[in-house]
Amino acid sequence: MSAADFSRTPWVDVAERIERGALAVLAIGACEQHGAHLPLTTDTDMAHGVGRRLADDLDALLLPPITYGDAWTASAYPGTISISPRTLQAMIEDIGHELLRMGVQGLIIVNGHFGNREPMLLAARRLTTAGLPVCHLDYPGLERLAGDICESAPAGPGFYHADEVETAIMLAIAPDSVDIARAEPSYPQFPPTFGSEPMQFRDFNPSGVFGDPRPATRDKGEALIAGILGESLKLVAAWRARHGI
Amino acid sequence: MSAADFSRTPWVDVAERIERGALAVLAIGACEQHGAHLPLTTDTDMAHGVGRRLADDLDALLLPPITYGDAWTASAYPGTISISPRTLQAMIEDIGHELLRMGVQGLIIVNGHFGNREPMLLAARRLTTAGLPVCHLDYPGLERLAGDICESAPAGPGFYHADEVETAIMLAIAPDSVDIARAEPSYPQFPPTFGSEPMQFRDFNPSGVFGDPRPATRDKGEALIAGILGESLKLVAAWRARHGI
Amino acid sequence: MSAADFSRTPWVDVAERIERGALAVLAIGACEQHGAHLPLTTDTDMAHGVGRRLADDLDALLLPPITYGDAWTASAYPGTISISPRTLQAMIEDIGHELLRMGVQGLIIVNGHFGNREPMLLAARRLTTAGLPVCHLDYPGLERLAGDICESAPAGPGFYHADEVETAIMLAIAPDSVDIARAEPSYPQFPPTFGSEPMQFRDFNPSGVFGDPRPATRDKGEALIAGILGESLKLVAAWRARHGI
Amino acid sequence: MSAADFSRTPWVDVAERIERGALAVLAIGACEQHGAHLPLTTDTDMAHGVGRRLADDLDALLLPPITYGDAWTASAYPGTISISPRTLQAMIEDIGHELLRMGVQGLIIVNGHFGNREPMLLAARRLTTAGLPVCHLDYPGLERLAGDICESAPAGPGFYHADEVETAIMLAIAPDSVDIARAEPSYPQFPPTFGSEPMQFRDFNPSGVFGDPRPATRDKGEALIAGILGESLKLVAAWRARHGI
Amino acid sequence: MSAADFSRTPWVDVAERIERGALAVLAIGACEQHGAHLPLTTDTDMAHGVGRRLADDLDALLLPPITYGDAWTASAYPGTISISPRTLQAMIEDIGHELLRMGVQGLIIVNGHFGNREPMLLAARRLTTAGLPVCHLDYPGLERLAGDICESAPAGPGFYHADEVETAIMLAIAPDSVDIARAEPSYPQFPPTFGSEPMQFRDFNPSGVFGDPRPATRDKGEALIAGILGESLKLVAAWRARHGI
Amino acid sequence: MSAADFSRTPWVDVAERIERGALAVLAIGACEQHGAHLPLTTDTDMAHGVGRRLADDLDALLLPPITYGDAWTASAYPGTISISPRTLQAMIEDIGHELLRMGVQGLIIVNGHFGNREPMLLAARRLTTAGLPVCHLDYPGLERLAGDICESAPAGPGFYHADEVETAIMLAIAPDSVDIARAEPSYPQFPPTFGSEPMQFRDFNPSGVFGDPRPATRDKGEALIAGILGESLKLVAAWRARHGI
Repeated sequence: MSAADFSRTPWVDVAERIERGALAVLAIGACEQHGAHLPLTTDTDMAHGVGRRLADDLDALLLPPITYGDAWTASAYPGTISISPRTLQAMIEDIGHELLRMGVQGLIIVNGHFGNREPMLLAARRLTTAGLPVCHLDYPGLERLAGDICESAPAGPGFYHADEVETAIMLAIAPDSVDIARAEPSYPQFPPTFGSEPMQFRDFNPSGVFGDPRPATRDKGEALIAGILGESLKLVAAWRARHGI
Repeated sequence: MSAADFSRTPWVDVAERIERGALAVLAIGACEQHGAHLPLTTDTDMAHGVGRRLADDLDALLLPPITYGDAWTASAYPGTISISPRTLQAMIEDIGHELLRMGVQGLIIVNGHFGNREPMLLAARRLTTAGLPVCHLDYPGLERLAGDICESAPAGPGFYHADEVETAIMLAIAPDSVDIARAEPSYPQFPPTFGSEPMQFRDFNPSGVFGDPRPATRDKGEALIAGILGESLKLVAAWRARHGI
Repeated sequence: MSAADFSRTPWVDVAERIERGALAVLAIGACEQHGAHLPLTTDTDMAHGVGRRLADDLDALLLPPITYGDAWTASAYPGTISISPRTLQAMIEDIGHELLRMGVQGLIIVNGHFGNREPMLLAARRLTTAGLPVCHLDYPGLERLAGDICESAPAGPGFYHADEVETAIMLAIAPDSVDIARAEPSYPQFPPTFGSEPMQFRDFNPSGVFGDPRPATRDKGEALIAGILGESLKLVAAWRARHGI
Repeated sequence: MSAADFSRTPWVDVAERIERGALAVLAIGACEQHGAHLPLTTDTDMAHGVGRRLADDLDALLLPPITYGDAWTASAYPGTISISPRTLQAMIEDIGHELLRMGVQGLIIVNGHFGNREPMLLAARRLTTAGLPVCHLDYPGLERLAGDICESAPAGPGFYHADEVETAIMLAIAPDSVDIARAEPSYPQFPPTFGSEPMQFRDFNPSGVFGDPRPATRDKGEALIAGILGESLKLVAAWRARHGI
Repeated sequence: MSAADFSRTPWVDVAERIERGALAVLAIGACEQHGAHLPLTTDTDMAHGVGRRLADDLDALLLPPITYGDAWTASAYPGTISISPRTLQAMIEDIGHELLRMGVQGLIIVNGHFGNREPMLLAARRLTTAGLPVCHLDYPGLERLAGDICESAPAGPGFYHADEVETAIMLAIAPDSVDIARAEPSYPQFPPTFGSEPMQFRDFNPSGVFGDPRPATRDKGEALIAGILGESLKLVAAWRARHGI
Repeated sequence: MSAADFSRTPWVDVAERIERGALAVLAIGACEQHGAHLPLTTDTDMAHGVGRRLADDLDALLLPPITYGDAWTASAYPGTISISPRTLQAMIEDIGHELLRMGVQGLIIVNGHFGNREPMLLAARRLTTAGLPVCHLDYPGLERLAGDICESAPAGPGFYHADEVETAIMLAIAPDSVDIARAEPSYPQFPPTFGSEPMQFRDFNPSGVFGDPRPATRDKGEALIAGILGESLKLVAAWRARHGI
């Protein structure tokens, strides 16, 4: 089985698939700093890479990714381009309404960036209410997988950014975009009010790396992706069963 | 010279370029039917491809493309995913405000889809007023170039969609996405009220092709791109002179 | 036949017409500079004047005109009052929803100002989707008619502003508002980036006239209007046929 | 002294007046049923007529009137076209911001329709805060004047609609639009919850007339206008004194 | 009979009442200055107090009050916290849509603050159109009751703010919040343009009291409330009859 | 020290405090089902109760609570009244802008409902950017405290709703509103896609209780509140230090 990747597929083939019954996969990324060794598109690359494998496994439509997200906390690093949560939500809703109109059975969102979570949830609510089942995935199982597979400790619980986890996945998905020679560890001291007030991360972390990317390898990346895919497929199966799709 | 392609560039390099003075290039595409031989991402691929070459020539920042546009007129072809003009305008404005904040000197928009034109103009107005000069390009010179380089006639004056022009450019930019064997001509009869009322193109053009894509070649595509680039660089030079950037 | 001009008609007569089946005509104008010899309401006067004749021919309802439009490019000339495209779109949509509610069969918009085009198109989309057929007219055939009837050249292709064309039509519609003694020609040099960046016209055209208004006569104005009406009626007939109204 | 009526005035004359210091007068009307003897534009005609005399007295700029208002309570009478209060507020604010930009010293709004009152107040707040003093007039003194000048009783306290008051003023301002032969009295029974729930007036008043229009004369209309003008000028003088304009 | 006060009632009891058929009562207040002797929550306290008695009489659901309103005219007194009319309207509409969804038969709004009137009316319109009958009450009969029961004159016709009326009602509803020892009369001179331009009340009334609160007593407060309740119940009965609820 | 509770404080006292430098405390609650033994206002009661003690300790202004929140996941239980996140965010922002205008030094938000978290964060961002420092508290330390103080297990990690934790706190804050005799345990089976798609909780939990409320006591509630207060004061101290307030 393989996805109908919209970047390679003409509309007539999509039309045919939809007639037979089809799911769509949409990656949501960001344009956000990821240290000196990963590109600004890291979150989009990762989410679209995972989305592609998921779409392959599901024989689903692979939509073009949304390439910008809400990256406000990283706005102080030049290169980060954050869009407002309202804009992101509108884009997801617009896309979902089109899928509904054309007869797609359900939408699976692969979210590659923490800041997108809430706009995604709100769009999912509206679309589900409108009649399009939506399953949203935030790299399910990642915390356990990172503990099992990676050597370095995260900078905070469940906090993976430009570290071993993300660097490994990028080595598996977009190796040419990784400049491992520039990878440097950084374990910043989080301010005591972290999580209790709006905060620019650059104020306490000049490099933008959270953790230690150096032990990352392509194999670890493949293992992480495989684990995420496994968890994702289980969730998708349960979601399909609930909706009979 | 070469662009700082955000899909390959870490933030620290972007920061350094901005300090020296930098322009940004943003492609705006669409997810829209392009007949049976071109993928749904054609407009994004073309605009980002042209944008990349322009950014190379200008030593500019190459932003991630906006992958969805206002493709309402093609909504009846499954696979087309149209976002509202308001959403598109918001996304461009959000991006522009971030560029302004980080010190980029000006924004060049390469628009790959006719339906994006108005939201783009309105965003450009707001951003220019806010202090970010914006130059927006709709493949300048294309009508003359198409007349000089292509063999087939367009389906209407200045109307190029899934035809020789677009197929040739795609052969130059994303040849693996073109299935030339499926290329078929189509010269639809436009309804008499075309342009005077909202209209779904599928009502009078079942294939989605407007013109004859068959004579397209990669060389013609390269010639078209070279011509567009030449015109674009002239416009950009005049724009820079007006703003002293 | 004659229009039911809302400025002369009580509601009971409108109600009666609607019961028999009625179309409505809405002019959209602007409050915008038109040189030293034409009033600020020129675009409204012209559109409502043409709309009145059209409504007479069609035995239609003649709605009050919208007296403000998006005239951003002329904002630097004192007296121009530009409203945002969003406000204009909202007003057209509000009006259309009322027409739909009261049972009007279709709406014909006569647009008198270039900057209104996009909000009008977007409103037309929404209203058509909501069930009210909308036909929007931008002085159809004007380019050919101007070439046939007028002596002076336009300042740019299809660009008619405070020139022979508009002055002639105003002499036919609102002669007391024209001060032909103050008419002066002006053929401004358009900046090289015209059309590729937001631009205040006053920066390159101090008088506000584009072309040469001096040869304008009332007879030419009547001929222009007659030609526009002829083209409009053909379009309206085709539109009615498409919608069976 | 006389107004600079925008329907007769070119921008250059407006520019000159603004340089010397100028106020603007804006009438807000409605497209609303006014019985069988008055046209749908009655509120606009009246407000613009009063506005014109006020602008003459003040040597002010007379802007094009806003021709639609919030007439929701009359929506059930075909011909009434009500716009949302949000649209109306946006239009007033857009106009005010343009006046501020071009250097007008203050805005006087002549409101001809009760339903417009709140959007007008909210727009006035925003504009005043933004730096443009706004004086809004709802036919000041009308209740006393109606009691002094008119013979018939109003349908309710301070409630004048298609009655002797409005008919008289229309006879003074737009006599050709009045069909006095069709004037019929109507003193509807107001439902007990009138004012305590949203209500379509047509439910309890089939004709649309509130009161008795028959005794209206042009002379009474002139007297009413003169009285309103006198009160208005006093208020405007106090407002100018408060703002030093 | 007694209200189902949401601050004391679990959802299961509300569910049961709704199944038998239930009305809801919603108080809308404000956070606004009320002189030196009344708390900032006066309007909320009063409206919720009256609402509670009304809900008791009607055996209705007593919703949590909306604790902020549009108090723009009092913004210059520190402590006043005014929300925009748009926010208030949205909150009322959101609440109403939930009531409609859960099967409540009608909504009675008890408004405690003049500035809330218009957003309340607009929300009521939308909700009524959506299928939820709404009855909105502004202390009906108060003007007559105040004349009958109170000794002091109001600062203006129908203008009761921190005066004998409001102080008396607060003495009946929230006596511990009243510091009668600090009550001082204030009969400010209203500016001549009062009602004709946006105005901060503090500019002409430093204390915030309008009238003379000193003669207020709890008994007068109870009498005022009883009168308001009587009028309210009559209106509610008529409203229920109109809607068959 | 004690709070200036707006429900007991006149504006003049607030003005005086602000002049000396003051913080404000705002509780955000919800109108949401809390089983058969707790009232619908539980989240508001708890948050305002905790906020009151915090304001006492900080000698701060205690604002009226926001009494509705985003409780979408509980919408299927009659009595729940959920407002949209956009409305809630607008209300917080409106309040914050007023505080900024009147000179309050910083805003502390006590959030009593999980669904409010994101609108609160977005409002906090905007307000902080506008110049008002915002500290938002979600019962800090609660997970540890619940583990230490409570006997029953939560229904899910960090998931406290109508259980021992909330019931205990309500017994301390609003004992008369708790009907402990109706407290019943409920440990629902969460669907496998919980957290990965929008979901109405009632679908898998008919009672609305998550956990076992029976072991709750007032003493436990006091201990929980004391612990939360301790953690909150530490966070507030750190926040004040960061902003020098």
